[in-house]
Order: sequence, then structure tokens, then C-alpha cells
Amino acid sequence: MSGSSIGLLFRLCNFGESHGAAIGGMVEGCPAGLPLNEADIQVELDRRRPGQSQFTTQRREADHVRILSGVFEGVTTGTPIGLLIENTDQRSRDYEAIRNLFRPGHADYTYLQKYGMRDYRGGGRASARETAVRVAGGAIAKKLLRTGGVEVRGALVAMGEVVIDRNRWDWQQVGQNPFFTPDAQSVPRFEALIEEIRKRGDSVGALLEVEAIGVPAGWGEPVFDRLDADLAKAVMSINAVKGVEIGAGFAAARGYGSGMADEMVPGSDGGVAFTSNHAGGILGGISSGQPIVVRLAVKPTSSIRIPRQTVNVQGEACQVVTEGRHDPCVGIRAVPVAEAMVALTLADHWLRQRSREKMVLTVSSGL
Amino acid sequence: MSGSSIGLLFRLCNFGESHGAAIGGMVEGCPAGLPLNEADIQVELDRRRPGQSQFTTQRREADHVRILSGVFEGVTTGTPIGLLIENTDQRSRDYEAIRNLFRPGHADYTYLQKYGMRDYRGGGRASARETAVRVAGGAIAKKLLRTGGVEVRGALVAMGEVVIDRNRWDWQQVGQNPFFTPDAQSVPRFEALIEEIRKRGDSVGALLEVEAIGVPAGWGEPVFDRLDADLAKAVMSINAVKGVEIGAGFAAARGYGSGMADEMVPGSDGGVAFTSNHAGGILGGISSGQPIVVRLAVKPTSSIRIPRQTVNVQGEACQVVTEGRHDPCVGIRAVPVAEAMVALTLADHWLRQRSREKMVLTVSSGL
Amino acid sequence: MSGSSIGLLFRLCNFGESHGAAIGGMVEGCPAGLPLNEADIQVELDRRRPGQSQFTTQRREADHVRILSGVFEGVTTGTPIGLLIENTDQRSRDYEAIRNLFRPGHADYTYLQKYGMRDYRGGGRASARETAVRVAGGAIAKKLLRTGGVEVRGALVAMGEVVIDRNRWDWQQVGQNPFFTPDAQSVPRFEALIEEIRKRGDSVGALLEVEAIGVPAGWGEPVFDRLDADLAKAVMSINAVKGVEIGAGFAAARGYGSGMADEMVPGSDGGVAFTSNHAGGILGGISSGQPIVVRLAVKPTSSIRIPRQTVNVQGEACQVVTEGRHDPCVGIRAVPVAEAMVALTLADHWLRQRSREKMVLTVSSGL
Amino acid sequence: MSGSSIGLLFRLCNFGESHGAAIGGMVEGCPAGLPLNEADIQVELDRRRPGQSQFTTQRREADHVRILSGVFEGVTTGTPIGLLIENTDQRSRDYEAIRNLFRPGHADYTYLQKYGMRDYRGGGRASARETAVRVAGGAIAKKLLRTGGVEVRGALVAMGEVVIDRNRWDWQQVGQNPFFTPDAQSVPRFEALIEEIRKRGDSVGALLEVEAIGVPAGWGEPVFDRLDADLAKAVMSINAVKGVEIGAGFAAARGYGSGMADEMVPGSDGGVAFTSNHAGGILGGISSGQPIVVRLAVKPTSSIRIPRQTVNVQGEACQVVTEGRHDPCVGIRAVPVAEAMVALTLADHWLRQRSREKMVLTVSSGL
Repeated sequence: MSGSSIGLLFRLCNFGESHGAAIGGMVEGCPAGLPLNEADIQVELDRRRPGQSQFTTQRREADHVRILSGVFEGVTTGTPIGLLIENTDQRSRDYEAIRNLFRPGHADYTYLQKYGMRDYRGGGRASARETAVRVAGGAIAKKLLRTGGVEVRGALVAMGEVVIDRNRWDWQQVGQNPFFTPDAQSVPRFEALIEEIRKRGDSVGALLEVEAIGVPAGWGEPVFDRLDADLAKAVMSINAVKGVEIGAGFAAARGYGSGMADEMVPGSDGGVAFTSNHAGGILGGISSGQPIVVRLAVKPTSSIRIPRQTVNVQGEACQVVTEGRHDPCVGIRAVPVAEAMVALTLADHWLRQRSREKMVLTVSSGL
Repeated sequence: MSGSSIGLLFRLCNFGESHGAAIGGMVEGCPAGLPLNEADIQVELDRRRPGQSQFTTQRREADHVRILSGVFEGVTTGTPIGLLIENTDQRSRDYEAIRNLFRPGHADYTYLQKYGMRDYRGGGRASARETAVRVAGGAIAKKLLRTGGVEVRGALVAMGEVVIDRNRWDWQQVGQNPFFTPDAQSVPRFEALIEEIRKRGDSVGALLEVEAIGVPAGWGEPVFDRLDADLAKAVMSINAVKGVEIGAGFAAARGYGSGMADEMVPGSDGGVAFTSNHAGGILGGISSGQPIVVRLAVKPTSSIRIPRQTVNVQGEACQVVTEGRHDPCVGIRAVPVAEAMVALTLADHWLRQRSREKMVLTVSSGL
Repeated sequence: MSGSSIGLLFRLCNFGESHGAAIGGMVEGCPAGLPLNEADIQVELDRRRPGQSQFTTQRREADHVRILSGVFEGVTTGTPIGLLIENTDQRSRDYEAIRNLFRPGHADYTYLQKYGMRDYRGGGRASARETAVRVAGGAIAKKLLRTGGVEVRGALVAMGEVVIDRNRWDWQQVGQNPFFTPDAQSVPRFEALIEEIRKRGDSVGALLEVEAIGVPAGWGEPVFDRLDADLAKAVMSINAVKGVEIGAGFAAARGYGSGMADEMVPGSDGGVAFTSNHAGGILGGISSGQPIVVRLAVKPTSSIRIPRQTVNVQGEACQVVTEGRHDPCVGIRAVPVAEAMVALTLADHWLRQRSREKMVLTVSSGL
Repeated sequence: MSGSSIGLLFRLCNFGESHGAAIGGMVEGCPAGLPLNEADIQVELDRRRPGQSQFTTQRREADHVRILSGVFEGVTTGTPIGLLIENTDQRSRDYEAIRNLFRPGHADYTYLQKYGMRDYRGGGRASARETAVRVAGGAIAKKLLRTGGVEVRGALVAMGEVVIDRNRWDWQQVGQNPFFTPDAQSVPRFEALIEEIRKRGDSVGALLEVEAIGVPAGWGEPVFDRLDADLAKAVMSINAVKGVEIGAGFAAARGYGSGMADEMVPGSDGGVAFTSNHAGGILGGISSGQPIVVRLAVKPTSSIRIPRQTVNVQGEACQVVTEGRHDPCVGIRAVPVAEAMVALTLADHWLRQRSREKMVLTVSSGL
């Protein structure tokens, strides 16, 4: 594999470059009988789509998705769901200027070293354009998960040094501002930051948080395919992500066992309840029934107007200034992408757990 | 798969429980011709082995590894390398006390929910005992990587609130103290911390850093199987790890593009040089030739002597106190495990890159 | 995975139904630098395309392929090659008659049992229509293999009881008749058989042979992923194939060791030569350097005009007569499909072998 | 992967050489709660074990299996089941004579070409010794399948030109003669053939048949991972197998559609019944509920006492005579191995089907 597929049972295959004819892929393993149409996917694509607010890139892609297979009379058939998004705004001439040089922080240099050649138009395969396919696949995963009572939702919790106030967290707010922030009062502060960043031709990083609620206990595999390990891979595979943490995350490294253990008490439903969730919903790689909490760090885009020194393909020193249409904070549009990756991972582990659960064991577990 | 194998071409399979007959596994895909004997593996196992200093668990396992196949006349044959470590110190009676309750922060509850039953002896499959097999596999990966000039090495850089001074970083020190710290002056501070923790029956988290030097540009696949994504999965799959970051990591979320871009200049060798390494050696998921830098957060072990409230398998409230032999800081012994996971991931991606590099392309790349 | 991808390193993903919007997929893992355009693929698709002679189905599909990604300035980039073939002749109304019954020998019944629903139009996913995507992927595999001196070619060697004369085998003939037979004198005999079959509304089976020449010794993995095992899977996965054999195949079951051993003699090139090829070019699952020979049995299509008894979805007895446009011998058009599957398998094993060969071993092998 | 693992969800990993320290492996993905002990596995190993009758090799291996993990208090835990069989009768000196030459029909030459070296003792990894691990894994698969009412059983149906009379087929007979023949009257004919073969130092091929009864409709995936395709791979991966067919198999190539279609009639249980089983229980790659029928051709072993010409590692012509302890008909002991491979494949597809069946679809299917 060349790394363009993810998942074992619920699997997304993904092709396409920033300025090629189209991007697309297919979802393998979606169970039969799920009601699905293009609008279900489009609504998620529209959340990620560029050019929607003044705070993101002005590249305009309709990002219109077509379902090519796997759906019959409004429901999935159990066979692969082919997905296609034609590229419509391919202004390749924008990129002639950077054809022969390596943009710092971009994959120009590493792709050339890996392949001996590269599609330099807009970053080619390394462009975040392919994340539209992830969002499309994630939309299907989300719809499937909802049939099991699982909801995946994400938010931006910090941009540069500007951090939201978690006491004002309101999931309703997330869809009502261009930053995906759950804290309404943070909106003007983010606006001001973006304004400042844009003015000086710079970019800024962001911290995102994705939560999955309703996941029952028992998803995830021991040892290598732990649920947290697969989530870490899925999320780290998003362009510009440099860090992932589950639950308390890096704070756990600074803490004590007495404070970090999530104590258990009899639950109101006769089961078990937890008094805290430092574990982020995963114990020993397996979901505990608590909300699953994933945080990710998105670096500032390297496409900035401030001149940076670099070398060209002949190895000569030169300067690069990126004048194209770029997001000052790529972390904003990464929110729906991160949700998609979490949803894809959970859908896969749901199927994995279904394949074996309650298969031969008939003894009651005592709870 | 039940999640007990990792890697596509260089692959580790891993079986065994804490108190079963033995742990072991096999390495698939190791190329033929690599000189290998049991001592090569034992030296790495001895770095992880419990009972070696007063700062780790007093459980005593010889951890003697046998190579059962795949090596002939002192070199690998290209066929699977079978590995076996018999369990010799299985004091199962220690665990009768916790047979019927769920230890907070442990996988007792999630395993029971997943499987409908569990091997309660010492955590069974969820015990960190299985990491010995990872270290064994990692020893082979390290040896293979060395033939390509790649060295993988790890260190503990913080424990709780005690942080090393990076200005005193000396790799030589790592092997000369029980904490794997590269800062000699941090040793007494860590000793004091462990002493204090142990006295009050608590445990503490740790921050580790693993570095791979000598990795050439070009390893890693675009999109999902990015080198950083696979490293994140490999490292997050280690028991008690709650966070992973590459290069600048979470600091990148707080930074600006102008500061985070690693500028490039003509290298002394006619190639390219970087003025910084915020990327941690990976751009677009592909190695850049710079050192690869991975950091991971290890939570404090949940096995502590301070009483915690929990429930038993009947769902009744009760208290748990762990009196067994446990590490006050599991992060210490996680250093060789983290190195192993990084080495296994790199060996796999080396083979993946070899499968296609310079296959049909004959045009010079200009550099 | 839902089974719609094949290959480990050179991998074809395949989506689409007989009467959906489009069929397509992607080739993952093709090395960078291979010259490739749509005409390279179209030429193979045209060999398989229906409606080309009076001896195959009269369904008319342009089968025009688009490359959507992975090719830049005429050469592959190393990233996934997206492939799309729009369905243009979807006369779904032909299939209303069979909407509610199970055609014997078809997958109508098993798909309904598996998925609880089915796309009944033209067989849906079970239709041989998806084999066009295999041929498209196979065209890329063939082109890659040619850079290594490997040629894959197939022929029809028997239809029903009519068998070619192997003494008249001439590969040049294969492209010059509608039956892909290498024996020019068999053409009128096959014509007569098809005429007779068609007249009585029946269908007939066929025996195909695919050969790969130029494969060097060393491709294939021991134990499970033997080259012959992977070829068997690839070929058996083609619609209507009921048997696969390598080299002497089933004749080996009737033979003696003294007759079946391919003796070895010093080769003219200083290497080794074989005096026969009962092994079909594969020993211990690994290619020997001799031609690889695969034979496959294709059953007669179950879509015939002779009434057959069956049941409908209500479980009532009824009769079925298939009046649609069908091939009297599906084995004919299976020739390019079989070539494609052999080529895909070989390309995959070439990359697998490249990943490890001559990696660390420096000792001369004596030959 | 180096090809030593098979299966997606129910997976067998396999290591070990003919004359190494041990052979073994692990079964990943076996559901929790299956009663299992070493005797369950040993009984199958004993069926395959050499040295049991005068008609097989006189090499004596106790083939005593140890379960190292994955079983607790007599039932499987859902975690990997580690398996170990120590090699006890490693008379390596027998093989000094063939150290420097290539035995025709063996993998000596191809292994050396592939790896640049080889473990020449008894065929090393290419020896059929590793099939003991397959039988051990297959024993677990069989036990799991039985909980679902599926039984897998095999028989030898021809040896050389001696064919059983299918009218006398009696499954009870299979376990009561050293040839696994279901036709009691064939026993003296097979004895006579073996006697003759042995006398002249030759070997003979065999035809085997494996049947699985009780498989419900719906197992198998469309397109590439068809149940028949995966069975073909599994069976073709057995040493010395040169051909595989399902149901009518190669006879289908010679037949007509009118004769080959398995007609359907209302079943006595309100479902569907078939009037014949040319399909061998698989339609469109998916099980139909009929018995699954797989036949395989096993070539005569190449280890014979009749001198064969060959070359040595220096490329010089020489003769080889194999004086070791070898089976005159390796097809006999291949019966339990073939059963194991069929059982492993079915167990895997059972889990695959469980992962998605009846997940979201609530509509009644009409049957």
C-alpha cells in the first residue's frame, strides 16, 4: 500500500491532488441498509469548504460530491461507496513561481527526495485538498455511528496564545461562528488575532478538541491496535498536525497517580460510573463508556507572505514569499477533518468489536 | 486481526499475558543476512527488565529470550524470527485480592466489558509485561537500522514537575543512571522525587523523548501512513502513554508561521541544510533527513498504595489498595520500549521505501 | 475491508455496480516515473469491451477510462492513480423481470442473504462489469512489469469439448481472432460451437491459460503468500472461475515424482537451466526464472434462454429465462481479465521482493 | 509482511524451520469464551504426525503442542493464543549431502536466489514441517466453527491413477485407514500402489477433497475476497499443491450452462433448496448454504531415490538421490492440513460477516 487507505473493516481509500482532474476515493465496509444520499455528505463538506468566511483561504471550490456506487434506492448496499469531487478552480499558473524551489515547512523537498519528481501545483498530493475526501468518508462514518447512538463533534479551543474559557463551553455555539469555537466570547478575540496575523502576512497555530459521546465500553483492541493508538494515527495523519493527546494527555506526565486515577462508583443504571475522566474514555486501549476526548495541535501554515530563505532545486539559496490564497490559520478548517478521522476510526472499531462480541461466551459477566 | 501485530513489511506479532506460561511472538520481514544472536536481543531486554534498581518494581523476571527460528549460522534467513520468553515469577496469588474488583485507571473493567471475561492475574494481556516482546522485536529493528546508519535512542526528560536542563543534555549519561536521563545533575532530583512518591504510596508521570538520527530523506508515505502518523500509533500503543508529539509538537499550536518554518540553506555537501528542526524531521509525512524527534507523555501508574474507591464485579462500592510490586514511575522503564516502537516503525518504512525507490525513474532530480 | 481491494504494495481498489453511475477505483503503490496515459489503459479495456464481435454480448459500453490523479506531465508521481469509467448503457428496465426472483447460478440469492437487500439491476456488484476496473489496473501493472522485462499474455485453450492443438500454438494469432485462441485452425471450430450454443439458447465453459515470461527467480513469499497462492486467489476472484492450476496442475496428482521433477542442468549463461517446467515457474512459492503458467476454468454463464426452474423472493417456485444481452461464452472476454489479475499479482510481488533483496547480505551466493 | 500470516480477523501467524529449535505461532482474533485445551489441538496434530504408519515418512516427531497464552481457566480469553512445538528429531547430518546442490522440484534454488542464502537442513522454512502449525491453528478454527454448526472434513479421493469409487463414499471410513480414503475398498489398492512406488524409489501425487457442511448463506465478500478466492489461496499455499477447484471445477470448463446451473426449488423449511451443487456451495463469492466443496491436486514429492540430474551451488552438473526419510505420497498427510486451511478461511469469513450482518437493516428480506 502506498498509504492512501485507512481502517481495517470500515476503510477509506483516497486519491487525488490539489490541481489534478478530481479527488475522490471509496468507503469499503459500510454495512448494508444505511440511508444515505449526497446531501448527507455535502453538509459536512460545506463545513470544511474554503472561501466561506473572510478567515479562510479565498480559493473557491464547489466541492460538490457525487456518490458513484454502493447506494441503491436511497440506502447503502454493503458494497464500496465510490466518491468523486471534481476540481474546478485549478489556477495552476499561481504555482509557476514555486516550481523550482522548496517552500520551507512544506513537503516540496521531501516529495522530491522520495519520488525523484513531484507535482508542484499547489502541493500536489501533499496539499490539504485531499482532506475533503476524508470529510466525505467521515460523513458516512458519522451517519453509521449515529445508528448506534454515537455522536462525534469537534471544536477549536485555542489559536496561538488565545485560549477559550472552558467554563463557557457551549456546543451549540460551534456551528454559529467561523472559528468552530464553543465559547461565544472568544469570537472577537479570534477575529482580532486573525486580522493581526493577516496584516503582517503571518500565520498561526491552533489547538483542537474532538469528543465522541455514546461509545459503549468494549471498542478497541489490546496491545497495538488500541483505540487510542488508532485515533492517534488517524489524527496525526492530518496535514499540519504535530501532536495528539487523549484525556489528560501531556498533563498526565506532570501528575500523580493519586490524582490521575478515575475512581469508580456504582452507577445509577446498576452499572459503573466514573468520578472523573482523565483517561479520556479509554483504558488499556479499550473504550470505557465515558466520552472519548482527543486533542490535537495544528501548526501554523508555512505559506506566509513574510519572506523566508530557502534553496531552489539547483541547490542555490533564494527567498520565497507565498502570495497564493492561503488560510492564516489552517487549524480552523481542520475541525471537520479531525471529526472525520475520529469518526472513521470509531466506525472501524465498532465493526471490529461486532465481529467477535458475544460470540461463544454465554456466561453472565456479573455486571 | 485482534490487534497484536504491527507493521506492514517489517512486522512484529506479539502474544502472552503477565502470568501465563510465556510471552513471545515473531518478527516477520527481516531481510536475510543480518548477523543476529540472542545476546543482541538480551542486552535490550536487560535495559527494560524489572528489579534492576530500587526505583523500579521488585518483580524479578530473568526475561531470558530464545530465538526459535529465522536465524541460521549466525545470520537471519529472511524467514520469521520466532521469539520466546518464559514467565518464571508468576506469583498469581498476589492477585486474588483484586480478582473481583476493578482497579481504577486499569483495564480490568474494559476487558471484562469487551470479552465478557478476563485473566485477572496481574493485568493479564493488559499488563506491561508484553512490552518485553516489543523490546525484543525492537532490538532486531535497531540492528537492521544500524546497517543503514540509523540510530534510535531515547531519554527521560521530565518526571512529574521535575524537568531536566536541556543545556546539559549528554547522550552518554543516559546509560549510566537508573532514570535514563541525559542530564547528570537531574539524577539526585529524580531520586528525591521517587523517594517522596514511594513514601506516600503514590506514583508519578513522565515525559520521554526519542530521537532517530541518520534517517535519510524519503521515508514515510503520503496521506494516512505518514511517518509521523505511524510513529504516533506505535508510541501511543505503549501502556500508559497518553500523548505524542513530533518536533515542536503542542508548542506549534501556540506559534506563528514565521517562527515555525524551518528555513533551508545550501548544505555543505551540495544538498540542503535546515536552520532549525521544528518539524521534528518529518515534512508532509516524509522524513527530511533531519533528526526525527518524538516525545511522549506517560501517565503515573494507577497501582498505588493510597486507597481509591471503586466497584467490584457485583457492582458494589469498595476500596482498592495495590500492595503488589509496582513501579512508582512506569515512565522510566518505558524508555527502551519507546525506542523499540520507534525502531520498529522506521524499519518498516525503510522497507516500504526500498520497495519502490529509484525503480523506473531515470531522470536526475537536480539535487 | 469489504474485499474490494487486492495487493499489499501494488494495490487495486475497485468500486461500482453494473448499472450504477460509474465504476472505478485506484491503483496504490505504483512507483513514480512510469510513463502513463489513458491510451495505455484504453487499449487493454478495448480487448475486454463487450459488443466487439458477434460472439460476445451486444451490450455497448464505450468503457472510456479517465485517469483522475497520480499522473503529472505524462508520468506517474508515486501517488494513487484514480480511475473512472462512467456507465453509459444502463438499460435497467431489462431487469425488472428478474427483480423478484433468484437466477440459478447467479449471486442473486447469496447477496440477498448476505446483505438483506440487493441491487438487482444487471447483477449489481456481482456483475462482471467490475472486471473492467481490473483490466484498467492490470494495464498499469503490465506497463510497470515491462520495465523489468516481464510480459504477461493469455489465451483461450478450450471451449466446452473443443480443445486447441498446442502444437500449433502461435502467440501472434491471439490478437487476430475474437476468441483469443493461439491456434488459427481452431477459429472455425469455436465459431461453429458458439453458433450452435447460441441457437439453442445455451452457454458453454472455457479453459484459459496465462503465461508470464521474464519473471526473475526470487519473487513470492514462503508459507502463506506464496506466489502461486496469491495467483490462485487473484484468478479465482474473477467471476465464473471455478478452478486454477499452476504448471502441471491436476495432472501432477496423477503423476510420479520421477516424471514430475524438473531436472536442472548448467545454463548457457553460467546459471541454471531446467529441462522441463511441470512446476509452472514456481518452486516453494517462489519464482524460479522459468515461465509462470496459470490455467483457469471458467464456467458457462448461467444467463441462458433455456428455461430453468427457480424460486422468487417470496419463496414460490417459478421459471426463469434470461432474455438480456449475454455472452454465450464468458470465458472469451475473461482472457484480458485473467491477464490483468496475473499482472497485478506479479507487480505486487516484485515490489515485495524489492523491499528486502540484497539489503544487508554481502556474501556471494556462489551462483 | 513476509507472508507468514493468513486471515484478516481470525489470523494465524506461523514461524519455524524443519530443523530449527521449534516451530510455532499464534492465533489472533479467536473470540473469548471458547473452551480450549492442548488435547483439542493434539488430536488434530496426531492425524498429521509423521511416523504413524508404514505409508508415511519414518521421521519421528512427538509434535507435542503447548498453548502459551490466550487461554485462562479452560477457555479462550480473546487475546492471541501462542502455540509452540519443539523440534525433537533434528538429524541435520542427514542433509550434509545436499548442502551444496539444488534438489529438483524443491525450493533449494529459489530460496537461494531470493535470500542469497538458505537454511539447507531438511528444506528449512520450505519444509512441510511448518504445516503442523497450520494444523494446530486449524484445530482452533474447527472448534470455533463447531459452535456455529459448521463441520470441516477431508478425504483422499485419488492417488496417481488409482481413484476411489464415490458411490462407496463413507465419511466414517476416513479415520479408519492410513490413507484418509472414504472408500474402504480402495485401501488395498492404495497399499499396493504405495508398495510399488516405494520399491522403485519413486513417489506419487494425490487428489484430495475437503467439504464444509453447515456454513450458512452469506459468508464471503464480493470481488476480490470471495470465499472461493480465499479458499483457493489458503489451499494453494500448502506445500506441493498445484491446483484447486471449487464444486464442478475444471469440469465446468467443459460443460454447458443448461447442465451447470444449480436450479432452485422451494425448500421444506420455507427457504430455498438446490437440485444440484455444481457451484460447490459458493455463488458470486458468497456461501449459498449448500456444502462447500474444495478439491486440490498434490504433486508427488520430489524427494525420491531415483537419481535425478541437477547442478550444485557452483553451477556444475551433478546427480542427486534423496536417501532421507520421506513420504512416498505427501498427499496423504496433506489431508488434515487441507482441512485446517479450509477451517481457518471459514472462521475468518464468519467473523467478517458477523462484523456487519443485520447491523442497520431492519427491513424483512422476504424470505
